Parts: sequence; C-alpha cells; structure tokens
Amino acid sequence: MIHRQEIANVLKSPTVGEDVTIMGWVRAWRGNRFMVLNDGSGAETLQVVVNGEDFDEETIRAIGFHACVGVTGELVESQGSGQAVEVVAKSITIHGAADLSEYPLQAKSQTMEFLRENAQFRMRTNTFSAVFRLRHALAYAVNKYFNDRNFYYLHTPIITGNDAEGAGEMFRVTTLDPASPPKDEDGNVDYSQDFFGKGTHLTVSGQLQAEIGALAMGKVYTFGPTFRAENSHTSRHLSEFWMIEPEIAFADIDNDQDLAEDFLKYLINYCLDNYRADLEFLDARIKQAEKNMKAELRRPMGLIEMLEFTVKDEFARITYTEAINLIQRSKPYKKKKFEFPVEWGTDLQAEHERWLVEKHFKKPVIVRDYPKSFKAFYMRLNDDNETVAAMDILFPYIGEMVGGSQREEREEVLRTRMKEMDVHEDELAWYLDLRKFGGCPHAGFGLGFERMVMYVTGMGNIRDVIPFPRAPKTADF
Amino acid sequence: MIHRQEIANVLKSPTVGEDVTIMGWVRAWRGNRFMVLNDGSGAETLQVVVNGEDFDEETIRAIGFHACVGVTGELVESQGSGQAVEVVAKSITIHGAADLSEYPLQAKSQTMEFLRENAQFRMRTNTFSAVFRLRHALAYAVNKYFNDRNFYYLHTPIITGNDAEGAGEMFRVTTLDPASPPKDEDGNVDYSQDFFGKGTHLTVSGQLQAEIGALAMGKVYTFGPTFRAENSHTSRHLSEFWMIEPEIAFADIDNDQDLAEDFLKYLINYCLDNYRADLEFLDARIKQAEKNMKAELRRPMGLIEMLEFTVKDEFARITYTEAINLIQRSKPYKKKKFEFPVEWGTDLQAEHERWLVEKHFKKPVIVRDYPKSFKAFYMRLNDDNETVAAMDILFPYIGEMVGGSQREEREEVLRTRMKEMDVHEDELAWYLDLRKFGGCPHAGFGLGFERMVMYVTGMGNIRDVIPFPRAPKTADF
Repeated sequence: MIHRQEIANVLKSPTVGEDVTIMGWVRAWRGNRFMVLNDGSGAETLQVVVNGEDFDEETIRAIGFHACVGVTGELVESQGSGQAVEVVAKSITIHGAADLSEYPLQAKSQTMEFLRENAQFRMRTNTFSAVFRLRHALAYAVNKYFNDRNFYYLHTPIITGNDAEGAGEMFRVTTLDPASPPKDEDGNVDYSQDFFGKGTHLTVSGQLQAEIGALAMGKVYTFGPTFRAENSHTSRHLSEFWMIEPEIAFADIDNDQDLAEDFLKYLINYCLDNYRADLEFLDARIKQAEKNMKAELRRPMGLIEMLEFTVKDEFARITYTEAINLIQRSKPYKKKKFEFPVEWGTDLQAEHERWLVEKHFKKPVIVRDYPKSFKAFYMRLNDDNETVAAMDILFPYIGEMVGGSQREEREEVLRTRMKEMDVHEDELAWYLDLRKFGGCPHAGFGLGFERMVMYVTGMGNIRDVIPFPRAPKTADF
Repeated sequence: MIHRQEIANVLKSPTVGEDVTIMGWVRAWRGNRFMVLNDGSGAETLQVVVNGEDFDEETIRAIGFHACVGVTGELVESQGSGQAVEVVAKSITIHGAADLSEYPLQAKSQTMEFLRENAQFRMRTNTFSAVFRLRHALAYAVNKYFNDRNFYYLHTPIITGNDAEGAGEMFRVTTLDPASPPKDEDGNVDYSQDFFGKGTHLTVSGQLQAEIGALAMGKVYTFGPTFRAENSHTSRHLSEFWMIEPEIAFADIDNDQDLAEDFLKYLINYCLDNYRADLEFLDARIKQAEKNMKAELRRPMGLIEMLEFTVKDEFARITYTEAINLIQRSKPYKKKKFEFPVEWGTDLQAEHERWLVEKHFKKPVIVRDYPKSFKAFYMRLNDDNETVAAMDILFPYIGEMVGGSQREEREEVLRTRMKEMDVHEDELAWYLDLRKFGGCPHAGFGLGFERMVMYVTGMGNIRDVIPFPRAPKTADF
C-alpha cells in the first residue's frame, strides 16, 4: 500500500511541523538544492529543500526535470518568498528518472503542434494541465447544474441506424470485410448482413432520442461524443467532439433561451469560483504571448476579466430579422467589407456574427426566429409561416456557442415540414409517435463542449482543449 | 414563456391553500373525477380532482391514460389516503391526447421485449422511469465521487487508431465506399486513403490513454462509451456500453482494491440515500413478480435489503490461488456439478464465481493475483513471475463487476511481456515512453456501468438498463 498526501491538500490545510509524504514530477531543480514538485492535484507546486549532505550522489543525480520522485520530510514555513510552506526532505525515492538527453519535452517551451504530436507528455506542461483541469471543471459543472435542477442524464446511442439526423456527414460503423463485402442481387453492398442487420453510422446528435426522454421524464440532458466526417482543417472543428443537449418538456423558445443563458453563466461562474489558480495561470500566459503583438491583435480584455464580464451582464436578445437590419446598417456593410452577402433569407456568416458580438453589442447575443429555409425540419414553425422558433447564442472569439429550438410538437405541421425537406416518415415513425400520443410543447439546445472549454481557457485551437484530438488524417494514440 | 411547478418540488414543500400549475402525463383516470399525474421529476404522482361541472365534455373526454395535460388549481390536503396533498382543478389544458385504440402501451403491463421495441414510450412506464432515474443517479454519483476526491475526468478517444488494446473484437470506422474501396498494389484495401489516413476502430477501453493522464495529473477517470463487436446474444452483453476507468499514479494493487471497494459502496449508498422512492418501487415490483415462483428461484433478499447488505460489510478478499483451493474443496466440485474444469492456471468461469459469491462468502469478493497466462500484457508481474497484480470484484447476480490491476511500470519487464504476448512495440511507443520518462507505480480498474445499474435496479436483462440498446441485429432508434 502506498501512502502519500496530495499537494493541493497539503497547501489547503498545511500542518507545519509535521512530516508529510508527497510524490510528483519535478518542475524545477535549482542549485542541486531546491526541487519544485507538482503532482497534478492542482496548479500549485510545492518546494522541497534537499540538503546535499543527507543524500547520496546517485539520488541527487537522478533528480531532474520531469523525473518522478517521492519525498518524506518536515513541512516548515517557507524561508523564501512565494509559498507559505516548503518541505525539508528526510528521504527521497526516485520512482522514475527522465533522461533529458532523450526526453522530448525540454525545459524551454514547445510549440503547440509539437505537444500535440507528443500527447503522452502534453498534460505534464503547466498550460495543458491547467486546460485539462478546467475541462474537468466544466464537465463536472455540466452534470452538477442539471442534477441540481431535476434533469436526468440520458445516454443516447453512439451507433445509430438513423439516417435522418441530417446534421452532417457521417462515419460508417461496420464489421463487413471491406475487401470483399457481401453484395445483393443488384450488386449493392448488402448491409442486411452487417453486424446490426443494416447500415449504421456514428451519431451526429442525440437530440431526437433525447426528445423521447423529455416526453417521459420531463427534463433530460445528453453529454456524450458526437462525430462529423467533414474534411475541415480549421482550428474550430474536430471529427470527434463532446456535445451537451438538454431537452425539456413544457417549454417554449423563451424558456429555452433562459435556460441556455443561465446554464452558460453557471459554467463560467463555476470555474471562476473553483479554479482560480488555473485561470490566473492561463490569463498570465495569454498576456505574455501578446506582449509583442500589435495592440489591435491583442484581446480587448484579459481572460478572467472577459469571463467576469460575460456572467455580469444579460445577453443581448434579438431576432434574425433585427440582426439582418443591424448588419445592413453597419459600417463594414456600407463599406463592402463583408465577404458574404447579407439579406433576409441567407444564413449569418462568421464575419456577421463577429460584428454583432464583438463590435456592436460587445457581449454574447442570442439570435432567434431564423428563416425556415435553412433550418432543420424539427424546429417549430412560427405563426408567420416563414420563420422557426430557433435560437443561436453567439460568443466573442467562438461564434456559435449554442444552437437550439422549440421543437415542432404539432403532428400535421411536422409531417408537412418533413415532406418539404425530404425526410422520410417511415424512418422516423417513432419520432412522429411522440406527437401523436401525449405530446406537448418542448424545446432544447446543443452546446459544443470544446467550444466552451476554448472560451474558458482562452486556447485558440480546438485541438488543444481535447486530450486526443481526431481530425482528418489525425487519429494518433 | 411556460410556467409550471414540478411535482417532485410540489410534494417536497407543499404550499397548501395556494394555486399550483403542474403538467404531466395521466397515469390513471378514475371515475371521470380523479386524475393521477406524473411528470417524470420523480417516482411520485399527484392526484388532481376534476369536478365534472367545472369543465366541458370535450376536455373530460380528452383526458385519458397517457394523455399529456396541464392543470392549474388549489393545492389542498388530501381527503383520501395515500398522499398528503392533491390539486382541485380550476383550469385544464390538454397538451396532447392519446387515442388508446392506437396507443401501443395499454394500461395492463407489457412484456419487456415489447417495451424494448417501443422504446419511444418505454420511459413512460413506472418501471423504466425508475430505472433511468437510477441510471442518472449512478452517473451523477460517479462524477461526484471522483470530483470530491481530486480526480480529473478525462475524455479518452472513441475512434482509435490503436490496434493494441486487445480487449475484444472491434467495429471499423470508415468513410471509404465499401462498394469499391481503394486498393494498394497488392490488392489490399488502402486505408491510407481512409478519413484518418489509416484503419480506425471504435474503442474497447480508454485505459491506455488514461495512463497518460494519471502520469501527469495524478488521478484521472474516464466515463464514456466502449464497444465490442462480439456476436453475443446474452442478457449480460451489449455491443455499446458505458465504462468507468479510474487510473491513479502512486498506487499499487492494494490502493486499487481499496479505491474500488469504497467507490462501489459510495455508488450504492448514494442511491439508497437519494432515490429511495424509486428503489422501493422496484423492490415491490420484484417481490410481486416472484410471488408465484418456487422459493429456490426467488432472490434470497429483497432489493433494498441486498443493497444495504452490500455496503454494510467488508468485501471478502482472496487470491486466485485461494479461490481455486476453495472451489476444489466445495461440494459442487466434489459432486462434479461444475461444467468447466477447475485447476490452477485456468480462468474462473461464471459458475465458479457465483459459487464463491453466492454460496461461500455470501457477499462481494475481490480475487487478486491471477496467472499471467490469461491476463493482459500491461498488468504488473508479481515477484513469483507467474501471477500478475490483477483483481476482479465479483458481485451476486452480476458476476464480474470490476476488473483492475496495478500496471507494469518497469520498462524492461513491460517490453518482455509485450514480446511474449505479441503486442507490437512500435504501435505503443508512446505507452513505453510513460515508463521511460518519469514513471511510477500506478493502478486502475474498469467498471461496466450497466452492470452496476442492473445491480441497483434489480433488472435482469442488460438491454433494460440502457435507453437504446445496441446488440447484434439491434440498432433501432
């Protein structure tokens, strides 16, 4: 049995004068005397004073950057500045040395690309351990928010036989031998012989199934991986990412907007309240990186300042029609600075969304009531017959953080929309059943989890906020 | 905006004499006067008194089993027995009628198979809403347990390029056209042209990647979907299921056993403390179903009694060698009642595990130190060179609930084991790196989430504890 104390706990309630046993990785080793240890339990390190005369040369030699050591010693008040306490080593165990001549991570900082390729060590850096602690914090806050409010966590399927989700390109899941798959009489691949007796894919959304849950258990949410087989090489897209999709019965688009705004603010507040040290580290990191940038390229606010600003104020709420009008009256529109056209009936592009959020409102914006022409079949038709009760929440830096809608609960209207949009009824008979028997107004939204992690950590590339990113030509580890 | 109160909240702090608005599904409609509503917020229902003279005939007619209605009325002390309060309706809204002549679920109870095929309504039954609330409870308890103890939630990849996980048959993930995939010079399918630039599959375990996390952040856990492309048609196996895999640095097999036992007891206690009404419902359901069974087919204890018994006592802890000796001295062994042979070096079969747990110890049993011959390459070799520091936790009814091990942290020993077991070093260079640079003793285990849900709910078929089960020839919804 191994006994040790976690550094985060030692620092939280230091028992000065008593012996402690800590174990961790060497983050600094100064003058063959001061060893700085981090054990991942938090952003904080604990300094160990190693008196050379108390240890043999071999031990001293094995201590080095990123070696893994265990130390037992007395916790004393720190002599130097910085931390309140330090440990005077009585015994040292070298769990694992790290030969720096071979070790991929050197003391100087590495490029983000290099760290991605060496993900077996990426989490050992200060930056990424902070990022992944905050990712954890956000995941926990998601579950806590919903649990505290009587939502039930619903595991919707990852492998789906549904072709009708329609949110993007899908990955095929199969056990057929691709070298010689069985064929039917017409020479087509015979998926009835595949594992599930039909063609199956990886889910792009759990929403349709979550509606089943909401119309039985009232309030549910999903939190699981979703997939897009799109050949996007941007800093905003992943082929595998995590999504959160609450779905609530007895709710309209106004309830939906209130829930989403309250939820997003809760997530940010949770990090501000509980992970301050990690946020401060990342805040300082960004300021350092921006030091030599031109003023107009720097972020207008520091990371923590921006997060506090986001939760303080109410989000702006406008309709799509108002958004179009605002953009058409804007300076960049008049000066023809926008690349894409702006007229009623076309979707907003990133450049328009950024102008609304970053230039005009200078805070998150909820846009609702989009034209039905470019929105999904399940969104509730408004009384104007032209728009649907859909809403997007736009964030600075990120763009679309949340997309949601009230769902069409009227069976006949839904059938008509499905026909218009070429969604086959027979594949979604169960979905229509939810309207036919004991239906009610209901609504929900989806939050791309990694986008929230990007916003809270200030990381610029989505591949740096998920432990093992999947993207075209990228499936290492 | 829709305003309503949840039934669970109304019952928790009833404001007698005030008006409430509740919405839900009709669970009973007696004498055209007493309407029993459930809204999914809990197991409890709330009775609504509908005075016929206050409502038109059409409204009264539309109320029926599984219709969805909203009611505003005064909360009064209940006249009848059972509940403390009821609602006297002042206004009623029919959100969605349910024509019983077409509705698949009738008032009398349905077979489990029928409900599985009609999963769009399954959660509206008392049994399944209780099961899925408990599934939520367990999921929340998993996250709370680890968060409260400084573990970080790590999302390991679902799509893996790793062939070396070796825990079972895998599903291929591809975007190649299976009718005419690209071939290389030798006529083999050219996966370098596939989406990820190589062959990829659905993960069977996040453990190897979780070790990266533990060796940087100290204590991590995964909680996500895992997959087996095995043609099993049993009541214990799914093709897609959720798994929890904690992984901890600075831990040996003893720490691992302590953590697992504490964790399992916490999960059960959490349900006993917070979801009593659902457990009582399921307990009564089992007793009802067993009424006409022979005594020897009934469960030896009621559901709640069994859960309380599980958390009260310490789990038995034995070695594999002790287990073999016990079984060889057992009555069924001597009477040749076991189907499979029992000798040192062969794996324990379900029949042996059940005897140990249900007949001999009559409580959960942790078996450790299995022969290396049938265990995975990453398990730490014991000093006897014959066994590894692996442990399984066996539960009544369920069999193996947890499988875990201390991991082999010695680089050279690991290399030897990989060679012996034909695991290619080049595919796991990153895994070996974790030993080469700053390694330490570490351990972890895996818990099949659905098995725990089965144990806590008393459901006999694993397909009835996951909302949308995936199994051979089964991928509906």
